[in-house]
Amino acid sequence: MARSVPQTRKAEAFDSALTAVAAQTDAMLAHLLEPCADDVPRLWDAMRYAALAGGKRLRPFLVLAASDICGGERNSALRVAAAIEMMHTYSLVHDDLPAMDDDDMRRGQPSLHREFDEATAILAGDALLTLAFEVLSDPATHRDATVRAELVLGLARAGGPRGMAGGQMLDLEAETDETSDRETVYRLESMKTGALFAWACEAGAVVADADPDARERLRSFGVEYGMAFQITDDILDEVGDAEEVGKAVGKDSGRGKATLVSLAGLEAARSAAIDHARRGSEFLDIFGEKADLLRAAADRLIDRRV
Amino acid sequence: MARSVPQTRKAEAFDSALTAVAAQTDAMLAHLLEPCADDVPRLWDAMRYAALAGGKRLRPFLVLAASDICGGERNSALRVAAAIEMMHTYSLVHDDLPAMDDDDMRRGQPSLHREFDEATAILAGDALLTLAFEVLSDPATHRDATVRAELVLGLARAGGPRGMAGGQMLDLEAETDETSDRETVYRLESMKTGALFAWACEAGAVVADADPDARERLRSFGVEYGMAFQITDDILDEVGDAEEVGKAVGKDSGRGKATLVSLAGLEAARSAAIDHARRGSEFLDIFGEKADLLRAAADRLIDRRV
Repeated sequence: MARSVPQTRKAEAFDSALTAVAAQTDAMLAHLLEPCADDVPRLWDAMRYAALAGGKRLRPFLVLAASDICGGERNSALRVAAAIEMMHTYSLVHDDLPAMDDDDMRRGQPSLHREFDEATAILAGDALLTLAFEVLSDPATHRDATVRAELVLGLARAGGPRGMAGGQMLDLEAETDETSDRETVYRLESMKTGALFAWACEAGAVVADADPDARERLRSFGVEYGMAFQITDDILDEVGDAEEVGKAVGKDSGRGKATLVSLAGLEAARSAAIDHARRGSEFLDIFGEKADLLRAAADRLIDRRV
Repeated sequence: MARSVPQTRKAEAFDSALTAVAAQTDAMLAHLLEPCADDVPRLWDAMRYAALAGGKRLRPFLVLAASDICGGERNSALRVAAAIEMMHTYSLVHDDLPAMDDDDMRRGQPSLHREFDEATAILAGDALLTLAFEVLSDPATHRDATVRAELVLGLARAGGPRGMAGGQMLDLEAETDETSDRETVYRLESMKTGALFAWACEAGAVVADADPDARERLRSFGVEYGMAFQITDDILDEVGDAEEVGKAVGKDSGRGKATLVSLAGLEAARSAAIDHARRGSEFLDIFGEKADLLRAAADRLIDRRV
């Protein structure tokens, strides 16, 4: 790996880039979720409540970093980033519902169905999911319809029954299934969270009209990053502090749900996360220093579990 | 209106065309919802349960009839029809949930959350919605990416917070709001059901690469058809028979929810439905006999409330 600046400076560069991306994503989401005079206030309030609650915006960061590497146009990438964050947000809103994971807190505030009600949470999730596709297919996102159609196709695959929705179904089934092995848990996590991380990186390449090799490398980085993220998330759930994490912890172990941590142990899980992050960074070698931010993102997962 | 064959023959032609479209739509949905070896069985079973329950397939009929008028390719139109039906089906699944309309029956069988469970119903709805966009953005739907992106944009607008999802939010609010007037109910119904009917007609023109005038006319027909449909539906809810309708009736009046029937009375509602159907048909004059099936669809709403 090309490493031209010391590790700490890279970490600082990543932290400030993530902060900047979060602010830009918030601004874009606020713009896209600005209701018109005729709109149904309660629905838009609920959508904004969920989407503007100040998440870390890691997926938008990945989109923008990947797009920057490939020379993409910033405003286009930001719209794609916002659409992916809408997809992520809808999944959190629905996952928090009483019939699903039944979580009262999300991003440090009452979850949407606690602040509003269940019906509004179901509808606001549906509306965010639908709006994500409206944003991507809007000519304002990219002048080339081929790019727009590919952005839609990729997000639909990452979010649908062979991606995130399928992973959430497996996750619900895993709560009552005590036979989960490592392979099952890997599959579940790669569908539930990995697919959207991988697509975030690939989408950055797509919106920048990158060549197929760059696109494939960024996707591969995203796959490894997603696994490293999920394992780190499972570790945090096991050893983390609820206030710091911003949501309930100890949920998975409390429910007897198998994770890579419960199956392999804390140390093996830590070392697996490190392996995934390293393997991910290797896919970026060809980009040289341009990929330093993405490399730092992977390193940061391990250091500070961001 | 150009009327070259007697009224009854047109009605018969419509009935047999609708039966044929339903069979073709079912076959396309069964194909698109065919799980692969790796797929999560419970989720796909639930999606198939909801989508293959034998609805009337009016929206697919509108897509295909509009596309045929404009000389569209049959397989493309059928994929668009299936995507719109997925969107419609997801909305029924979510609307039936206990937190929403709490309906136990749908299309003559237990609603999805009764047959499976709430979590599966939420996820299967999400997955159907997402898959609809995957189908539309797939190059198999149309070789021209501009058409694919427009199909996505139109469906997202019809289904999102300014369309169906917004209408459902208004509908939930109307249950507790006793100040609903005719204007409010019109707006609610045009968002909740009208937007998707209008888009079904317009999408048939889009997938057939029709000129802007034909597209606008078909959309306008769809708007009027949608209003006529909704009023007829409200009338059926008031006077219909549960077995014949295939779902619970008397729900709206039982909940004290305002409809055009409760606000204007049965006779005024019937005459409004007829007006909408007639006005819709007038937009089709330019197409001559080619539009006979669509005209018959509008007439049939009035005759037999199909």
